[in-house]
Amino acid sequence: MSYNKTASITAETINPRVKTFNYEPCGDIATLAERLQEELKKNPGSRPFEEIIYCNLGNPQALGQQPITFFREVLSLCDNPTLLERDETRMLFSACAIKRARKIIEAMPGRDSGPYTASQGIKSLRESVADGIAGRDGYPSRPEDIFLTDGASSAINLTLQMLIRSEEDGILCPLPEYPLYSASIILHGGTMIPYNLSEDGDWGLEIFEVKRCLEEARISGLTVRAMVVINPGNPTGQVMSVTNQEEIVEFCRKEGLVLLADEVYQDNIYVDHKKFNSFKKVARSLGYNANDISIVSYHSVSMGYSGECGRRGGYMEICGFGEDVVGAICKVASVTLCPNIGGQILTSLVMDTPKIGDDCFERFLAEKENIQSSMVNRAKTLEEAFNSLEGVTCNKIEGAIYLFPRIHLPAAAIKAAKTEGVSPDIFYACRLLDDAGIAVVPGSGFHQISGRNIATGTWHIRCTILPGEDKINEMIPRLKSFHEAFMNEFRDRS
Amino acid sequence: MSYNKTASITAETINPRVKTFNYEPCGDIATLAERLQEELKKNPGSRPFEEIIYCNLGNPQALGQQPITFFREVLSLCDNPTLLERDETRMLFSACAIKRARKIIEAMPGRDSGPYTASQGIKSLRESVADGIAGRDGYPSRPEDIFLTDGASSAINLTLQMLIRSEEDGILCPLPEYPLYSASIILHGGTMIPYNLSEDGDWGLEIFEVKRCLEEARISGLTVRAMVVINPGNPTGQVMSVTNQEEIVEFCRKEGLVLLADEVYQDNIYVDHKKFNSFKKVARSLGYNANDISIVSYHSVSMGYSGECGRRGGYMEICGFGEDVVGAICKVASVTLCPNIGGQILTSLVMDTPKIGDDCFERFLAEKENIQSSMVNRAKTLEEAFNSLEGVTCNKIEGAIYLFPRIHLPAAAIKAAKTEGVSPDIFYACRLLDDAGIAVVPGSGFHQISGRNIATGTWHIRCTILPGEDKINEMIPRLKSFHEAFMNEFRDRS
Repeated sequence: MSYNKTASITAETINPRVKTFNYEPCGDIATLAERLQEELKKNPGSRPFEEIIYCNLGNPQALGQQPITFFREVLSLCDNPTLLERDETRMLFSACAIKRARKIIEAMPGRDSGPYTASQGIKSLRESVADGIAGRDGYPSRPEDIFLTDGASSAINLTLQMLIRSEEDGILCPLPEYPLYSASIILHGGTMIPYNLSEDGDWGLEIFEVKRCLEEARISGLTVRAMVVINPGNPTGQVMSVTNQEEIVEFCRKEGLVLLADEVYQDNIYVDHKKFNSFKKVARSLGYNANDISIVSYHSVSMGYSGECGRRGGYMEICGFGEDVVGAICKVASVTLCPNIGGQILTSLVMDTPKIGDDCFERFLAEKENIQSSMVNRAKTLEEAFNSLEGVTCNKIEGAIYLFPRIHLPAAAIKAAKTEGVSPDIFYACRLLDDAGIAVVPGSGFHQISGRNIATGTWHIRCTILPGEDKINEMIPRLKSFHEAFMNEFRDRS
Repeated sequence: MSYNKTASITAETINPRVKTFNYEPCGDIATLAERLQEELKKNPGSRPFEEIIYCNLGNPQALGQQPITFFREVLSLCDNPTLLERDETRMLFSACAIKRARKIIEAMPGRDSGPYTASQGIKSLRESVADGIAGRDGYPSRPEDIFLTDGASSAINLTLQMLIRSEEDGILCPLPEYPLYSASIILHGGTMIPYNLSEDGDWGLEIFEVKRCLEEARISGLTVRAMVVINPGNPTGQVMSVTNQEEIVEFCRKEGLVLLADEVYQDNIYVDHKKFNSFKKVARSLGYNANDISIVSYHSVSMGYSGECGRRGGYMEICGFGEDVVGAICKVASVTLCPNIGGQILTSLVMDTPKIGDDCFERFLAEKENIQSSMVNRAKTLEEAFNSLEGVTCNKIEGAIYLFPRIHLPAAAIKAAKTEGVSPDIFYACRLLDDAGIAVVPGSGFHQISGRNIATGTWHIRCTILPGEDKINEMIPRLKSFHEAFMNEFRDRS
């Protein structure tokens, strides 16, 4: 395509921050996978596999996860409230969904789901979210501290925009990281201060490491404003212990850091000995209130058993901020007017699900448990499969939807990658896609290559547990035989 | 509320850009109106009016505008595609909506409305939008040039983020302006270059004035990157003539400016002698293609007869950008993953409405024409009412949903405003709310007070035409008697 030669916008003249950041969903693997899929469509049988198995994207429903019926019923009714006045509606929708939709619509200004809402979200829906948080944590939550948002990403962006004044403002972020953080920090003109998670310690967070990074940053002249924690972890799949969370709360309180708690995987836990605890709950149980520490908690409808990624629903709960700061957040939120109403409604549903006695409770529970137990199976199966491979070590997946195995690549493979001018993990991931039709994200997409890891040179891939169990069973032999062949090709012969 | 004294975020330490911008929806009138409404609820009869008439917000459905049945039916079905498999569905939904929902769902990856979509939006929906544009303009439109977005505001924000590198980058914007532009330019660290619309010339745009502002900005060292045009105008209600649009196209082409065309009111035209012409159509009809000029056109589902503000649906069509720039826009869009699916679907519906022969066509047309003809009536009635007031001149409302009358305030009123420490237009608007229960936005909310107007000292209010006809009829006597009393109180007695 030709383009306008006189226009004032070209790749050379766009905002340079846009050029700087590196964001995985636009990465090479996704593009390669798309190309390969096209090729398979045109020439079936041209590869030893019939279709690509997508373990690269955290997009559950794209891989066959079924939506929760109750959620979709309520959304459908709220979109078209005239249905609530028709008798025939009872033939198509559960009484429980009709009741809930009626309650939602009746509490809406104008009794319809059409108008702009408050920039913070509809008050009655924020009340449901706050009640859900209070029930989960056992500590009070206030609707005025809830901001409904177009997914957690929008909330994270908004917070970082509030915090970052210049590149002298730093934000502590875990490595490996979910790259939304570095992208957003760069776009808002700040500095990311990476701290390393401990692979040898099951991807745990070591406070001495965070402290080291904080001190180095301060010595270099940065003002450190906040610390990001992702629990359960993306891409690591770790669930933090309460003791670890307590250390983090104490640390942020002492150092005057805002604790940004990415808690979007709170409904994805796969081990019996750990459960999800919100950072707010941990802080309150230590006796700290809004006067002692500022915490922002992010949640979303995209993950968990809900998996409603395309709805763009989520919330942030902000605790320990002055009223003037809350007003300023409201002002920035108002620039895009309000979060989408469907996402707002769904967020309230995720935080206020059917209860025992509701006519749809049994069905809701069965659907939810079916998804969750299948995730447990898939997590376990994939973890075992990776650990059975030569030179691969994979930490236990305790939560979230990812495994992040380390591939101990032979020297010859690293050399071959260098010859091709790519990072060794990208080399491995491209071969895995090309030879076995399995799409994963190379570890360097999470900036695992940066920081301390440059020295040790560790290589990883991120693999989701989202394909269905049949697909996982089809994938494992493909993974095993690919890996064996790859190792045979490159095995160290010293 | 007390707040965290040690935390690193306070009103003093937030991003200073957040403090700088001034955005009307958070303005005092909205807060005052809310307080007054509460007061009326507690003490009915405490005022000479029973309820507030809201002419301040561009939120049609909040003021009783009914949604288009076809749009809501399709949204409802797409939310819950299992309905498409049930016979009973035909009792509740039109065949036309079922057919359209089926077509939409079948073209979606995974045949459901749940997953993340491409960051640019679902391809099949972008195709519908492109076909709609081509049909409207008579010139081709390509789905790869369409970005579906969470309303036009998100699209405008995204574009400005791409364009602005530092405060040395300037964007030409009309005064009076829709304050999203100044807010977004400030948040992204750029400089707004205001140009004045000509009140004496029916709020027309005079190229010599824009040229003057461009030259002054260049002399002061700014790099001028783009020119914003709002047509039909917000808050002015003007519809541009083709001749005027041609001048603008020629100007932007010659000066190498990206033309940012806010065309969200394209379905709101109230006069027979003018019609909407997109800037792209005007450029193409002059013989200019993507090689000659870069144009971004914004549209939304929030305005027009649709009025679906809370759905957050919209698009931008970008013409004349290099593939690398398009890729960069895609990368920034991907940071918030994708626009909400409900908004995407609705945008495709607004651009591809029922056709003659569809079973729901008659109903669709009747609903649409009912809304549009009522808007014409209300526009005319309000325009006449304002022009009948002493010392008020109101330009013709040709399009959009606003009147922007000028109030020639007596010296004593200006003095009284000064005593209270507020701008005279705010003084008038507060009294109008307090004494007559009519909420409007003072002209200074659109920065009309800035620029050339400081010298001439002109005072305006923005009044929407959105309350129903019964409300407008109730409002006009209230407006008239308020204004008469106000003038009697302050009339110049020289």
